[in-house]
Amino acid sequence: MRKLFLLLAVLTAVASAHAKFVTKSVAYEHDGVKLEGYLAYDEELVSTKKTAPGVLIVPEWWGLNDYPKTRAHKIASLGYVAFVADMYGAGITTTDAKRAGELAGPFYGSPLMASRATAGLWQLLKTGLVDPARTAAIGYCFGGSTVQALAFSGAPLAGVVSFHGSIVPVPADAAKTVKAKILMCHGAIDQFIKKEDIEAFTKALDAAKLDYQFISYAGAVHAFTNPEADKLGAANNIPIAYHAAADARSWAHMETFFNEIFAVKK
Amino acid sequence: MRKLFLLLAVLTAVASAHAKFVTKSVAYEHDGVKLEGYLAYDEELVSTKKTAPGVLIVPEWWGLNDYPKTRAHKIASLGYVAFVADMYGAGITTTDAKRAGELAGPFYGSPLMASRATAGLWQLLKTGLVDPARTAAIGYCFGGSTVQALAFSGAPLAGVVSFHGSIVPVPADAAKTVKAKILMCHGAIDQFIKKEDIEAFTKALDAAKLDYQFISYAGAVHAFTNPEADKLGAANNIPIAYHAAADARSWAHMETFFNEIFAVKK
Repeated sequence: MRKLFLLLAVLTAVASAHAKFVTKSVAYEHDGVKLEGYLAYDEELVSTKKTAPGVLIVPEWWGLNDYPKTRAHKIASLGYVAFVADMYGAGITTTDAKRAGELAGPFYGSPLMASRATAGLWQLLKTGLVDPARTAAIGYCFGGSTVQALAFSGAPLAGVVSFHGSIVPVPADAAKTVKAKILMCHGAIDQFIKKEDIEAFTKALDAAKLDYQFISYAGAVHAFTNPEADKLGAANNIPIAYHAAADARSWAHMETFFNEIFAVKK
Repeated sequence: MRKLFLLLAVLTAVASAHAKFVTKSVAYEHDGVKLEGYLAYDEELVSTKKTAPGVLIVPEWWGLNDYPKTRAHKIASLGYVAFVADMYGAGITTTDAKRAGELAGPFYGSPLMASRATAGLWQLLKTGLVDPARTAAIGYCFGGSTVQALAFSGAPLAGVVSFHGSIVPVPADAAKTVKAKILMCHGAIDQFIKKEDIEAFTKALDAAKLDYQFISYAGAVHAFTNPEADKLGAANNIPIAYHAAADARSWAHMETFFNEIFAVKK
């Protein structure tokens, strides 16, 4: 019996080692703005002509830098097609919080937040690699807010995952419009997110009878999934920090969520 | 490659089918009260003389009826040794909420809650099948409160999981005493658990810098993991109900938690 399990482990390792990933930049346009997203997937998906679940990734307010690309690679290694949306414009990134605030600010409370992200979603679907019934969007900080807005816009996603995203007010018509299940991964001591906002958010979701899970991780502040957060926090004098346990736990919870929402039921 | 994965799946199924479980009642005593717990494990653990993680299960306020036994079987199928603690006395169960309240009531706010559960924990350890460094306690409703009290008593557990447990006040010395990581699985619209109590609870845990995760499941009320809840709720005219999605999700989150806290690191 033990030997059989060992054999299974070895065979699994061999199978995994064969995966080869394609990564590439993708130019597209929305509302007159030239954008550049980032695609990542396992090339076996193409050679076998099968489709896989697709995951849109929306970056933090710093823009499409290396961090969301590393997450795209992790998503691809799960067997999903990943596409990082560009929200600002080709090549626009910053490490300055004041500039990031200027870039992200106009999106909050504007239909542009969901529509710009939707433009990324179409790029993901356009690859032809994705099963349209099995799509999700995940986002970090500003991107977390964006995927909430995307869900509230009625986007035909199976689910969204917000990692340390600021709370987006639930619209009055949410019960009718929203199709996506919602997973909120929240740092329990995040100083950017007010307890009152969370309470109003869950109360509105309860009233609309929407499907959500809200998880608080002890000890985690804003940006807890980003290994660069401590450096960026120190440079900008803002309370953000990486939290390894909360990062690992929230990623595992996202995987469980995907296993549920991407399950093929016939 | 696809064929290799198929082979893996078949071999895994064959390996799993070989597992054989031992289940038995265990008589013990605490504070002059004769108790009868319930043990469940995979017999392969015994024949190979290896130890496994051990999981104490504390029943709902109905007492040690069939429900916690079904959970023990599920725990055993994960490869862990399960022991259902008896809190009331050998054979004492009820389906009447008034009687359940009389049975459970005296434990709340009393050291008896943790000490009676600890007596069960020793029975689990006494089997000799369990690695003492890899133990956890899970509990339902009243049992959820009990595992919180167990953690707050300083029990040497790697973790506790409370499923729809009423909130137990965090003691002042928690920062020094508590060793267990805490996972709270909460029904978002549970009418027995006050929002103020949850807020005071997480605030105290934050102040004590304790390791916890607090998860709210949309649409779930009290007793959401118990398939018998609807029947019991109707008979007693109390707002409890089964919620299949929240049950599946909280169980998966418990498994992820166990994978973390039972990981062998050398």
